[in-house]
Amino acid sequence: MSIFKTALRGYSTTQGLLPTTIKSLYKQISNPPQTVDQINGWVKSVRLLKKVGFIDLQDGSCLNALKVVVPITQLEETEFLKSLKTGQSVSVTGALWNNTPQREQPFELKIADPLNTLSVTGDVSNSYPLQKKAHSIPFLRSLPTLKHRTTYLGSLLRFRSAIEHAISETLESDQFIKVAPPILTSSDCEGAGELFKVASTSGDGYFGKPTFLTVSAQLHLEIMALALSRCYSLIPCFRAEKSDTNRHLSEFWMLELEMCFIDDVHKLTTFVESMLRRVVKSCYDRIDELIPQVDFRDSLSKEEIIERWNLLLSPKPWANITYTDAIEILIEKHKKEPFPKYEPIWGESLQTEHEKWLADKYFNSPVFVTDYPRDCKAFYMKLNTDSPAGRETVACFDLLFPDMGEVVGGSIREDSYQLIFDEVERRNMNRSGELDWYLSLRKEGTVSHGGFGLGLERFVSYLYGNHNIRDAIPFHRSASGNINL
Amino acid sequence: MSIFKTALRGYSTTQGLLPTTIKSLYKQISNPPQTVDQINGWVKSVRLLKKVGFIDLQDGSCLNALKVVVPITQLEETEFLKSLKTGQSVSVTGALWNNTPQREQPFELKIADPLNTLSVTGDVSNSYPLQKKAHSIPFLRSLPTLKHRTTYLGSLLRFRSAIEHAISETLESDQFIKVAPPILTSSDCEGAGELFKVASTSGDGYFGKPTFLTVSAQLHLEIMALALSRCYSLIPCFRAEKSDTNRHLSEFWMLELEMCFIDDVHKLTTFVESMLRRVVKSCYDRIDELIPQVDFRDSLSKEEIIERWNLLLSPKPWANITYTDAIEILIEKHKKEPFPKYEPIWGESLQTEHEKWLADKYFNSPVFVTDYPRDCKAFYMKLNTDSPAGRETVACFDLLFPDMGEVVGGSIREDSYQLIFDEVERRNMNRSGELDWYLSLRKEGTVSHGGFGLGLERFVSYLYGNHNIRDAIPFHRSASGNINL
Repeated sequence: MSIFKTALRGYSTTQGLLPTTIKSLYKQISNPPQTVDQINGWVKSVRLLKKVGFIDLQDGSCLNALKVVVPITQLEETEFLKSLKTGQSVSVTGALWNNTPQREQPFELKIADPLNTLSVTGDVSNSYPLQKKAHSIPFLRSLPTLKHRTTYLGSLLRFRSAIEHAISETLESDQFIKVAPPILTSSDCEGAGELFKVASTSGDGYFGKPTFLTVSAQLHLEIMALALSRCYSLIPCFRAEKSDTNRHLSEFWMLELEMCFIDDVHKLTTFVESMLRRVVKSCYDRIDELIPQVDFRDSLSKEEIIERWNLLLSPKPWANITYTDAIEILIEKHKKEPFPKYEPIWGESLQTEHEKWLADKYFNSPVFVTDYPRDCKAFYMKLNTDSPAGRETVACFDLLFPDMGEVVGGSIREDSYQLIFDEVERRNMNRSGELDWYLSLRKEGTVSHGGFGLGLERFVSYLYGNHNIRDAIPFHRSASGNINL
Repeated sequence: MSIFKTALRGYSTTQGLLPTTIKSLYKQISNPPQTVDQINGWVKSVRLLKKVGFIDLQDGSCLNALKVVVPITQLEETEFLKSLKTGQSVSVTGALWNNTPQREQPFELKIADPLNTLSVTGDVSNSYPLQKKAHSIPFLRSLPTLKHRTTYLGSLLRFRSAIEHAISETLESDQFIKVAPPILTSSDCEGAGELFKVASTSGDGYFGKPTFLTVSAQLHLEIMALALSRCYSLIPCFRAEKSDTNRHLSEFWMLELEMCFIDDVHKLTTFVESMLRRVVKSCYDRIDELIPQVDFRDSLSKEEIIERWNLLLSPKPWANITYTDAIEILIEKHKKEPFPKYEPIWGESLQTEHEKWLADKYFNSPVFVTDYPRDCKAFYMKLNTDSPAGRETVACFDLLFPDMGEVVGGSIREDSYQLIFDEVERRNMNRSGELDWYLSLRKEGTVSHGGFGLGLERFVSYLYGNHNIRDAIPFHRSASGNINL
């Protein structure tokens, strides 16, 4: 087989092909060019002194702005610089690089003759709503076409991208194969929650049977795990619930992962901890590039964010407790000081107030709660055969984060045909055979397997410190009905 | 800020945490262990001689199978090995590593006492349809829960994953930020084609206005490009057309990319060429790991695939021609030897027969066709102001691959508010103001920008050599209506 030494000649780099970004200027700090031929961006702010103007440009390629210094030699120049407005797009040519190691920004660009070297390429309207000052998040949400230009929400987009990249790097190194399970499906996965129904605009019956938007890829992932040993997906999922809280979205992205030859839920929790630590660590090494300094009530401060990340990266392993032990602890606490709304009772789901107290107060750590009662969880989870009659539990876990609650949920899957068949019967499911295909997997080379799902917007929001997950997706869809574009 | 030297202690590697895969055994060839404690997989085939048995195991982690050699010392062992069936899951313990550099497979595992060291963990039914022989693709499509276990379709899943990874690596290195545009939208992008309509199962009006599945993320990407300079998305898109060909899917994944400060369609085509060359090159270096040797009529042979990749990686730049020049060439050819169905005429779309002849015969190369007539293309493409009146063209391109036709389509976008407003008027679009938000982008810091879309399944299929793109997505959705799971 011939080797293409020349295959990438001229194609291996986009140097010179794509326009210069502010990010690429920052990358050149240790070996800067004397001049920058051209740089484009949007005006962030302008400050004028008598003899000199300072223009901060942004281009969204990175958190940093670019300072352009303009010595003023004539009145027309002052007038021109005065006329510049936040949000205008501009092009700067023939700028000199000037190192400024003593200042906060390590360099600036300097131009002379701004009337000829700085041109406005796109104006803004008089009602352009973004100004130098910080705007409240609810106000920004009302500006879906412009809000991503702000430092805070632009950085959130870049951060989400970094998280996705870190996840895929981590899973790639662990031999997980990325797959694309279907969005359109006739399956409702675990039968939980409201669905969205899909029809062709040219009439119903396009697919010959009722078709829905997926709520979870898990059942399809199990098919592929049984072929590939390890796989994962990152796809949009859809829930039509009316929940309209700061933790719910109708359209959200979910990381789901499934692997074979695993039969112990604690191996699964150890893997989840390892994976999330690696993801957070890779971002920790770039924290100043990823997390802006902000000071408004819609977000944690950078210091509080670092504290969160420190907690996740603590040398101490994350807490790990069974549901049954957790209930005992909660009952003890409830005796001394009752929970405001719910008494903890074995056999009932943990309520948010219970989860928060466990993670925030009792452990002050991420905590895996494992082995929930069978009836609290979905039908496909593996029965713990050593659990006492009447107190059957399943080999599952929820991962609770302090200040957040559930971030990941997973389980070992029931791999015995007879046991899963019995469970489906007991729950009165599969009345018209719609799960036959799924059950049949346990008849054909079944193996122990397990996996989990992580809501991407929740995870991103936790790390970025934004209080409402709808800001962690560029255009949120939620029960309050905003779908104007 | 403190540094977490201990943050990953015990978490930086999954060595020992996850079970051994066949892939990880192949990675140890240069420094093999003496014994392998445990390896799991599925029986691919069994061959029995008098005194020795050979079992080929697969686990889907890689293309390679694992050969397990079993010396036979007693009748019960023969009986046991005879009873093994293709598709059963098995677990092998305490195997010895044996290098076999003289054979095709560089090593094998050897076990003694198979009754105790090889156990069947999951049986198959008597009707298990996959056997050692190759099955036809149409037959495999009828087995959606099992088909991915075949070498051919399992490799296709791994290949798709490799392509996605190569794309994200390439774009990451070029500072593109991955974003998640909405799937649910009230926009129909360019107004082309049938849509899927979405409603909550608990009643209509969930979002307060008609809601559809996206056909393209482009308009939303433009919003984000104007904030970030460069962004891309890889999301499922949906078309409800009745086209049921080997190149159409109702649900498909599309790579879409948008960048600012670019005003020349040839810069865009150079970028596309560079990006795709880098993606193909990164797979070329692993071709033996990615592409199986097959010999059936549903696919190209590996030799033919290599030929295709060679063509893409040719040191010669890909062909680049304007639509107008292409039409002239086509007219010349049509005069000498007419096309079977369509006469080439300036102002009409290129037909598939024209595209194929250009790429396959005339250029024998990927070819960018640029600057199509305005009325052949979508409303948002930038008008070539130097095009003659009555023969207006737009700054766009289609990338045609030999044997395939269009794989990528893109353009510089019209960034002038007045020109795009006029064009929308001319086309009688935006009657109820549904594009106002999009047009308004040209009023607020507009910049030259452009981008393109690539149908992932088409690109993967072209490189993998499968003839029907529905095999390049794990569960295909097409107008023929198969949605049984």
